[in-house]
Amino acid sequence: MIAVYDVEEKRVAKMLKLFRQYLNWIQNSVFEGELTEAQLLKLENSIKKIIDSETDSVIIFKFRDQKWADKKIIGKEKNSTSNFI
Amino acid sequence: MIAVYDVEEKRVAKMLKLFRQYLNWIQNSVFEGELTEAQLLKLENSIKKIIDSETDSVIIFKFRDQKWADKKIIGKEKNSTSNFI
Repeated sequence: MIAVYDVEEKRVAKMLKLFRQYLNWIQNSVFEGELTEAQLLKLENSIKKIIDSETDSVIIFKFRDQKWADKKIIGKEKNSTSNFI
Repeated sequence: MIAVYDVEEKRVAKMLKLFRQYLNWIQNSVFEGELTEAQLLKLENSIKKIIDSETDSVIIFKFRDQKWADKKIIGKEKNSTSNFI
């Protein structure tokens, strides 16, 4: 699972704090991880409480087998501790 | 395929221009699309010419069957024209 958000500056800190409880930060406003359906539902509900759905955007990519097939990093790895649980 | 970049401000415009030649912009510095291996190689070489690999970061997620399984948008869809070719 990959999640990305694009929110107004004043909500970034709150979103970062929320996402970090569920997923691994890998870059900018990009997170990866594996969640159960229940965890994902809880995250989605928390997201809806924070964002202004008129201006903010969150995209969640899910994969058939929970993981992307291949991840390639060009340049610096912003979060070198990023590994799947 | 999903590609995200986290680069210094002065290189953002160049990266945006490059990525738009290959992929669909969907949000912030996030792009999606389907590329052949040859196209991907060309994109990667162009990326390496632009970025400072000490500070900038590009992550490319590839999937077994070229596409994510499910994409969920919460809040505003920043690029409503984003559809797969």
